[in-house]
Amino acid sequence: MSFNTFGHLFRFTTWGESHGPALGVVVDGCPPGIALTPEMIQRDLDRRRPGQSKFTTQRREPDAVRILSGVFEDERTDGPRTTGTPISLMIENTDQRSKDYSEIRDKYRPGHADYTYDQKYGIRDYRGGGRTSARETAARVAAGAVARQVLGGVTIRASLVQMGPHRIDYGNFDWAQVGENPFFCADAEAAALWADYLDGLRKSGNSAGAVIEVVAEGVPAGWGAPIYGKLSADLASAMMSINAVKAVEIGAGFEAAGLTGVENADQMRAGAEKPYFLSNNAGGILGGVSNGDPIVCRFAVKPTSSILTPRQTVTTANEDADIVTKGRHDPCVGIRAVPVGEAMMALVLADHMLRHRGQTGREGAVGFGRD
Amino acid sequence: MSFNTFGHLFRFTTWGESHGPALGVVVDGCPPGIALTPEMIQRDLDRRRPGQSKFTTQRREPDAVRILSGVFEDERTDGPRTTGTPISLMIENTDQRSKDYSEIRDKYRPGHADYTYDQKYGIRDYRGGGRTSARETAARVAAGAVARQVLGGVTIRASLVQMGPHRIDYGNFDWAQVGENPFFCADAEAAALWADYLDGLRKSGNSAGAVIEVVAEGVPAGWGAPIYGKLSADLASAMMSINAVKAVEIGAGFEAAGLTGVENADQMRAGAEKPYFLSNNAGGILGGVSNGDPIVCRFAVKPTSSILTPRQTVTTANEDADIVTKGRHDPCVGIRAVPVGEAMMALVLADHMLRHRGQTGREGAVGFGRD
Amino acid sequence: MSFNTFGHLFRFTTWGESHGPALGVVVDGCPPGIALTPEMIQRDLDRRRPGQSKFTTQRREPDAVRILSGVFEDERTDGPRTTGTPISLMIENTDQRSKDYSEIRDKYRPGHADYTYDQKYGIRDYRGGGRTSARETAARVAAGAVARQVLGGVTIRASLVQMGPHRIDYGNFDWAQVGENPFFCADAEAAALWADYLDGLRKSGNSAGAVIEVVAEGVPAGWGAPIYGKLSADLASAMMSINAVKAVEIGAGFEAAGLTGVENADQMRAGAEKPYFLSNNAGGILGGVSNGDPIVCRFAVKPTSSILTPRQTVTTANEDADIVTKGRHDPCVGIRAVPVGEAMMALVLADHMLRHRGQTGREGAVGFGRD
Amino acid sequence: MSFNTFGHLFRFTTWGESHGPALGVVVDGCPPGIALTPEMIQRDLDRRRPGQSKFTTQRREPDAVRILSGVFEDERTDGPRTTGTPISLMIENTDQRSKDYSEIRDKYRPGHADYTYDQKYGIRDYRGGGRTSARETAARVAAGAVARQVLGGVTIRASLVQMGPHRIDYGNFDWAQVGENPFFCADAEAAALWADYLDGLRKSGNSAGAVIEVVAEGVPAGWGAPIYGKLSADLASAMMSINAVKAVEIGAGFEAAGLTGVENADQMRAGAEKPYFLSNNAGGILGGVSNGDPIVCRFAVKPTSSILTPRQTVTTANEDADIVTKGRHDPCVGIRAVPVGEAMMALVLADHMLRHRGQTGREGAVGFGRD
Repeated sequence: MSFNTFGHLFRFTTWGESHGPALGVVVDGCPPGIALTPEMIQRDLDRRRPGQSKFTTQRREPDAVRILSGVFEDERTDGPRTTGTPISLMIENTDQRSKDYSEIRDKYRPGHADYTYDQKYGIRDYRGGGRTSARETAARVAAGAVARQVLGGVTIRASLVQMGPHRIDYGNFDWAQVGENPFFCADAEAAALWADYLDGLRKSGNSAGAVIEVVAEGVPAGWGAPIYGKLSADLASAMMSINAVKAVEIGAGFEAAGLTGVENADQMRAGAEKPYFLSNNAGGILGGVSNGDPIVCRFAVKPTSSILTPRQTVTTANEDADIVTKGRHDPCVGIRAVPVGEAMMALVLADHMLRHRGQTGREGAVGFGRD
Repeated sequence: MSFNTFGHLFRFTTWGESHGPALGVVVDGCPPGIALTPEMIQRDLDRRRPGQSKFTTQRREPDAVRILSGVFEDERTDGPRTTGTPISLMIENTDQRSKDYSEIRDKYRPGHADYTYDQKYGIRDYRGGGRTSARETAARVAAGAVARQVLGGVTIRASLVQMGPHRIDYGNFDWAQVGENPFFCADAEAAALWADYLDGLRKSGNSAGAVIEVVAEGVPAGWGAPIYGKLSADLASAMMSINAVKAVEIGAGFEAAGLTGVENADQMRAGAEKPYFLSNNAGGILGGVSNGDPIVCRFAVKPTSSILTPRQTVTTANEDADIVTKGRHDPCVGIRAVPVGEAMMALVLADHMLRHRGQTGREGAVGFGRD
Repeated sequence: MSFNTFGHLFRFTTWGESHGPALGVVVDGCPPGIALTPEMIQRDLDRRRPGQSKFTTQRREPDAVRILSGVFEDERTDGPRTTGTPISLMIENTDQRSKDYSEIRDKYRPGHADYTYDQKYGIRDYRGGGRTSARETAARVAAGAVARQVLGGVTIRASLVQMGPHRIDYGNFDWAQVGENPFFCADAEAAALWADYLDGLRKSGNSAGAVIEVVAEGVPAGWGAPIYGKLSADLASAMMSINAVKAVEIGAGFEAAGLTGVENADQMRAGAEKPYFLSNNAGGILGGVSNGDPIVCRFAVKPTSSILTPRQTVTTANEDADIVTKGRHDPCVGIRAVPVGEAMMALVLADHMLRHRGQTGREGAVGFGRD
Repeated sequence: MSFNTFGHLFRFTTWGESHGPALGVVVDGCPPGIALTPEMIQRDLDRRRPGQSKFTTQRREPDAVRILSGVFEDERTDGPRTTGTPISLMIENTDQRSKDYSEIRDKYRPGHADYTYDQKYGIRDYRGGGRTSARETAARVAAGAVARQVLGGVTIRASLVQMGPHRIDYGNFDWAQVGENPFFCADAEAAALWADYLDGLRKSGNSAGAVIEVVAEGVPAGWGAPIYGKLSADLASAMMSINAVKAVEIGAGFEAAGLTGVENADQMRAGAEKPYFLSNNAGGILGGVSNGDPIVCRFAVKPTSSILTPRQTVTTANEDADIVTKGRHDPCVGIRAVPVGEAMMALVLADHMLRHRGQTGREGAVGFGRD
């Protein structure tokens, strides 16, 4: 994908900096006639919103979305509907504290893009990280809510499955738990343990990494565009483009490397109407094309680089220095990456749904219209 | 990326089926004036070529490349040079044995794309896997050789670092060993052990997965195109698009999830001319942009799905069946994925080199002209 | 180009409907470090703004632009500068009169896209033409102002050269006149005659077409991306995408068809530092690549379709009807297309400047920074 | 569009030089299951082939096409069918005479891209014009033949409607005449007059320009992708990308500028099943979207620049010189542009057919499968 745009037929372009007046996204290529209200978008944004527990940044942003174009309603449309023209969504920034920025202006924060942006562009909006701030992901979540509406019968959910070195027990996996703890974790026991773990790290000026698993159910067989637009390749690109992500895997992922061919290849059996698979090491994708099984994707988020522990760095003048990154930071940025991962999954799938029916004339879609 | 094309400014499009008359690639957007001979391409193709040991398929393909366009030579050019127009490269298939294809025509091979292609397209060239065959990667390697010429001072190397459950000992890591064993392995001891391991699997009609590590040295800081065209996102897409790949990671990758912020963020010190990093957990990429350190990318290849052990499957008529995939198959497709991974790294970097200087006017390039 | 995005390296995406809350554009891929203030954009927008004479619509829109992202200023930047991240520009709609829309809701206006949008999307924002309104061109002009800043030494100007059947006399051509009459016409005598002509049409409930000529001076030889991204092809696409445009030509254009080879091909002579051309039938483009001469492009704008004269049409229920399109309409939409044509020229050139130096590493640019 | 690729969903990439070993095209994104044989492509190529009368170049090229990939046939497919994978088509060059190229190596031919390619790339394959030769259009015609198969019920035809200053009489217009004269002219009387006119020019070492009209019938309402991917904008880009084309118009085109709104806007009436238009000044396109009427597009081809009359030019060392371009050249390149224009129309429409059904899920297509 290119620059600040993602997707081919269902495309979106994001803009905005952490401490600018607003951020937003333009969704282009959306099918017409899809029901879309601000509330449908807001409910997803609210899940990503900061300040909801002590485990996320205390920045207070309502993240209220406005629909500026692309939706129309009159007495005949049964509520607001997309028109097929660009959908412009805007979120105003309200809690950019005025402060002294000289620390991050003059020193490069380890683990951040400060140094690389300076090397690339020769100029940098350092306030709150500017364009590299995770606030950009609010725009993805907003766009993802539109994609969900398009996908209709597809269900997309995600869970934190590892925090620091602590993985969940898949035996406890229960989607209903995801909304019951501050970690979006499907394993209630793991969540309870993580609370102590993360609190300890936070108080000591440290932070934790995480792994998120995203699952899409209801995707029909046939979506994906070989060779270089494989569903798996687009998912890898989508997830790796999220702030702080360093790894992506599909299905058995890296574990597949340790398996034998006898163990790995999912065997098939004849079903009533169509074949089914006896296992899902493939994560729902074969040859870059969906096989009808759940699409399973995991990605790793590195620990927050903005920590209170002093770190060695250099100034923009190439002189040794120490830095302590104060401010309101998530002790585990992986937590709020959960709804972002869901959004990226939805955005990739919506694009492939349209590309598939464009090339083949086959619908493949389960149906339109969430709710 | 889209369909069978990869890249933005430095772009390539591949075509061809396993048992068709030929396969090839069109490289578009290549800078003019770059030295390019068939030999420069052939030496990379020869590394990927089948039949070089008992650990790869016994199909005999010389994989001889022809340059059909885009290169010009006269008495003033000091050898053949690219002209900036499309470079068409073609490789003829010579060893497509005529045989009875009814087995793979009528049954879906587990772990293969047979079923998904049928679901997507309703028609399938089943001979040798058609378009889904790993023969397509020969075209990538040919294109990658062109990209290497463009990249000049950048060195790209790869090693198999895990076969089945057996990882290398990084203490033994020596690039010079990669050319000394049939596994492209930088750890001579590991390679010796793998030989027995893989031979045993092969004889029992089974196969092994693998992990490949690709390293690019000499990439200047500043390459990469945030937000959705991050260098890391494009590498993830590039590697995940290779046949049988199920996972990709950059730098510390999934291990980063288990680290704390104190452990993970690479600290910086002032160097003589520019800063340097005290570690490389970032794998040379921060915020999607190169930081001057080596770019480090690993990807997992699942075990070969074509094995002699009988597997459960279904027929195209949705009836239960068993299948044994005879033929000449690699017991570990990860081995020949090593030069393919190098090629994809080169192709991503060449594209970003051009995109960087396009947007910023900064060269960033170390220099042109390998050799 | 695709949907609502134009350009490859220097790209922009527009959004917004005529009677929505706002319209805007996201400019992506802009080089960093370019001086950019709202005033630099506003001065171009003010030329396109409605309501400046009796010859344009009386809708009152200040068209005040806000820069929402992509520009940064601190004590070291010498004013606001682009950062290389997306530049989001927004213009609020202020004069959308509440009115009864039932006429254009239920009947298709001849010459408008009402019918085709209904056929394509099955839903239509009919208020003021929705997305098909020429208000969208304000976003192009805003983006074009950014492109002008990037282009530095390139001068882009345009003139109305024909209104209805009345062409200008090129013997009177004087760029200084363009700002002196309400028609952006370089021929003062023609402008005087057109005033009467257009006033007569307007009063009789009719309208006029026009031809605009856009000229870019200072473009170095070498810009353009053959074969399908020819500078001429991209200009043709750019101009034809403007509302109501039905024809585009480069240099001698359609007249070239009537010339012989002896008459048409521009001969060359050796200059002090480089060759020059004895004529410019090529309009500055040969083989899709700029030759250093002025780029000359003309396009035809059809007469305004919204007129007070009753016309035959059908209802959305496919019943015969008459329609009179009331409202505040330009009697000659070609007039305000003049700054739009300039903007599209700037946008195409900025993209090709970046693409050229991306592929070739040659600057080709005259220099950065207008003013 | 970008570089050597055209299209979004139905895409093609061409390669090859005039005097290289071959030229070709890769068609990507083609729907699966379409009947496609070499003969279906060859019949279109044969219409463009050189050497068929004294009015075209005497270069002897059979232009025999080979299908190298993307088509499959077995006992169940009822002939060869596309598989949805890339279709690689190749045409070998057979009549590249070995000759002394020093004249075109050292001097720039007026009206050609010699100078601009040198300025852009710094290197140039001057043999027969290299990549800038009109031989590239053979690849377009081959790709266009595939597009025609996809378009099914759409009929695409073209006629030369002007040679030099001599226009046809539309009163004589008869599609059946196009195959009856060497000019692809629908007016038999005009064709007879042109024969003398062109013969005179040819003998005097001169050449003629031309205008071609392309008409597509059977296109349903709804194709086209506003705003920047308008059907009209893509047609303009497509036609302007053809060698020697300097102007493009849709429907009334430049004449629309001279009409009033009362005259120009096509009025509508209720038909039995859907509305119809009383005229077609729009050329079948409103707001960039097809309206169900015939798509009408005209483009101007400049006179052949390679003529036997001596012209003033410069050497590559910037010294004055004269040049006479010997060789086998078409006295009117517009003639063989007729099948090329048809091909580009087909290619644009096939892309928009797929894009339309991708976004909207509406078929819009009349049906598959020519013949």
